[in-house]
Amino acid sequence: METTKFTLTEQEIPTSWYNILPDLPEPMPPVLHPATGKPVVPDDLAPIFPMELIMQEMSPEQYIEIPEEIQNIYRLWRPTPLFRAHRLEKALDTPAKIFYKYEGVSPMGSHKGNTAVAQAYYNKQEGTKRIATETGAGQWGSALSFGCNCFGLECKVYMVRISYDQKPYRRIAMETWGATCVPSPSKDTEAGRAILAQDPDTSGSLGIAISEAVEDAAKREDTKYSLGSVLNHVLLHQTVEGLEAKKQLEKADAYPDVIIGCVGGGSNFGGVLIPFIPDKLAGRKVRIICTEPESCPTMTRGPYAYDHGDVAGLTPLIKMYTLGHTFVPPPVHAGGLRYHGMSPIISHLHHLGLIEAAAVHQVAAFKSAITFARTEGIIPAPEPAHAIKIVIDEALACKESGEQKTILLALSGHGHFDLAAYDAYLSGKLIDYAYPGDKIEEALSHLPTVPVA
Amino acid sequence: METTKFTLTEQEIPTSWYNILPDLPEPMPPVLHPATGKPVVPDDLAPIFPMELIMQEMSPEQYIEIPEEIQNIYRLWRPTPLFRAHRLEKALDTPAKIFYKYEGVSPMGSHKGNTAVAQAYYNKQEGTKRIATETGAGQWGSALSFGCNCFGLECKVYMVRISYDQKPYRRIAMETWGATCVPSPSKDTEAGRAILAQDPDTSGSLGIAISEAVEDAAKREDTKYSLGSVLNHVLLHQTVEGLEAKKQLEKADAYPDVIIGCVGGGSNFGGVLIPFIPDKLAGRKVRIICTEPESCPTMTRGPYAYDHGDVAGLTPLIKMYTLGHTFVPPPVHAGGLRYHGMSPIISHLHHLGLIEAAAVHQVAAFKSAITFARTEGIIPAPEPAHAIKIVIDEALACKESGEQKTILLALSGHGHFDLAAYDAYLSGKLIDYAYPGDKIEEALSHLPTVPVA
Repeated sequence: METTKFTLTEQEIPTSWYNILPDLPEPMPPVLHPATGKPVVPDDLAPIFPMELIMQEMSPEQYIEIPEEIQNIYRLWRPTPLFRAHRLEKALDTPAKIFYKYEGVSPMGSHKGNTAVAQAYYNKQEGTKRIATETGAGQWGSALSFGCNCFGLECKVYMVRISYDQKPYRRIAMETWGATCVPSPSKDTEAGRAILAQDPDTSGSLGIAISEAVEDAAKREDTKYSLGSVLNHVLLHQTVEGLEAKKQLEKADAYPDVIIGCVGGGSNFGGVLIPFIPDKLAGRKVRIICTEPESCPTMTRGPYAYDHGDVAGLTPLIKMYTLGHTFVPPPVHAGGLRYHGMSPIISHLHHLGLIEAAAVHQVAAFKSAITFARTEGIIPAPEPAHAIKIVIDEALACKESGEQKTILLALSGHGHFDLAAYDAYLSGKLIDYAYPGDKIEEALSHLPTVPVA
Repeated sequence: METTKFTLTEQEIPTSWYNILPDLPEPMPPVLHPATGKPVVPDDLAPIFPMELIMQEMSPEQYIEIPEEIQNIYRLWRPTPLFRAHRLEKALDTPAKIFYKYEGVSPMGSHKGNTAVAQAYYNKQEGTKRIATETGAGQWGSALSFGCNCFGLECKVYMVRISYDQKPYRRIAMETWGATCVPSPSKDTEAGRAILAQDPDTSGSLGIAISEAVEDAAKREDTKYSLGSVLNHVLLHQTVEGLEAKKQLEKADAYPDVIIGCVGGGSNFGGVLIPFIPDKLAGRKVRIICTEPESCPTMTRGPYAYDHGDVAGLTPLIKMYTLGHTFVPPPVHAGGLRYHGMSPIISHLHHLGLIEAAAVHQVAAFKSAITFARTEGIIPAPEPAHAIKIVIDEALACKESGEQKTILLALSGHGHFDLAAYDAYLSGKLIDYAYPGDKIEEALSHLPTVPVA
């Protein structure tokens, strides 16, 4: 039998992140100040982010060195394994070669730590004592709690109330790592108190939680704000995944014909696919496919337009695929994919025709995840289950055509925190939501007008 | 900074398990037939175990080759990492060097897969179609479900009812891997029906679940029974852990002065410590310390005596440390340590003075686990939390004495399934149970009489 797992030595862990910005065939549209319509400058962002992260957001450098202190923490779970999915291939009877890059071996069980540790480090360097953030189902909140704990920073997480009540495990993980987690809306901010006064029983939303975290950071001298996806510096930190995967594929004497991952804000898949873009620009044939839920079809149905990153409309205007910042997606189990917008880098690459997108219903995603668990052994998180559906489709197409394609799957994490969703699927209770066309149309009618600079 | 993680190449994964039996300075007391008092022979065990596992139970061979098919599955998570706990050492301000061997990167989040895969393989080889087993909190049941799925065997798990109701996540993992899991007592066996007729609302016990699984296997031609700890062949399969750890420590240019792990049935720690026993017998100074709950203090308070492995008294008589087979431990969160007996190999080694034992209260164990999570980043399962308490004690003793001891910790798994226990600790609700002396005395009064052969 051929080799199944491709490992790297500690010396082979990347020591720099790869920054795609200088290599883009066209520059990205600027991020705009919502009041003036002018491109934002570093000083606009300084109240809520440390300067090093702001500079990374706009950096012209191809490679940015990973500080030794961050590398030391990365070594707890990096290099993550790249597997050849021999058993899945056999079950599908496909000539395709399927590889997957697996981030579930980290202490938080997902890829989120790659940027959480970096963000905590740069904040620490610049004297931040405390970081505020929001979290939906808790994956990002727990990763940032871990990161802050590594560098002795306080961490305050505003967690959407319905998840806080229904999914206590990630909240407990945050507390285990020493963070403070409150249900949002909370009494700790003006935004939270105003909403509670109106509707004391609200289940909360990511938009409200962002408002609370940003207010917290803006009001306190010792506190900065942190975001777990979407932004350029977040994807930059995640490129450690793709850089490792390239080296590992070399050891497997393979190069992907197709790269498939899931996108919510785009940080896991962005981190995997970005290091392959220069090859594609140099003429290498490689298809790159983003997968998303049918009920939150940002890339497949949304326009490429300027919009806010948050529901309340507080953030700068970003050019991205969007369903409208007031759109609230149906409660699919893949909480990490329930976002109205998309990373501007991924949006730009799609706009340039470098990557494709596909939408998947959750029942089909979980069916594929079960196939994966029963062949490869790993129980995937609900988010990458969407990507697995498309991987299986591609592999079965290879069976039809006889093509021996090499497929790379970005497997962002394990599903140990999400087994209730598997229970719903296995007991036949999982449902698909109809395409929320009316709600999307309504939300798109509220796209912000871009002021003339 | 020094290296943190010590990896092995795929070529360095052990290809044989190490069998301690021929190297013991005194042979182990025989396992006795409960009716005749005579040593059991392979044919006595043939109705419930495949012959290869029975032969491994009594093998005179020092090394037993790991079949290629098992190695292929092991590669999904093996070699597991050995870490140097730099951040924990720094937090404790100790001159001790602490290493830990971490099994939480496996698909089931613990070490149990190492034997589950092997047992499923040998059953498959001998024509078994279906395996029945019992599980408490579900760690073993989920691992065996995984193992059976790898080789296309059906798996039926009898899960103690109170855990089935209160801890659904591992039950869902079993079903995700294709197993059938029923609450025990169930209507599927005579033993289960009899108990339900007497007490329809019983919360069940491991003893009842064993009776059901053994009955299931004994009654069906296509079915065998499987046990996840205690037995010699189970510890044999787990030696892959200790064999890897020795190679990794060599790369770290280190050899342990102290090896510390937790013991329920003894399979994780047995697997780690056994490969170090030959060195100790050859004169190398190494302390080996088993840790257990104060409320289930088998090694520290129990006699070394012949007893049954199950509560119902169906199994052969094994010479081991025991609290009496009718003893039901208090409901501590470390479900994997709630066992009245102990692996006969570990018992024998302790009786020979080769290993020591220490008991720990659960509040102290969780306090240590929080220290570990906040320094090393990994949230430990409640079971190895007990070992971490003793590791910290040893490291602090080194601080007092100035000794630069090397400590090896066996970290059997992550605590992602056990966060409710962390919640109880963090909210001040976790309690310690008093030493259950009266219940132990009562249970010891029911130790079986060994028939004269």
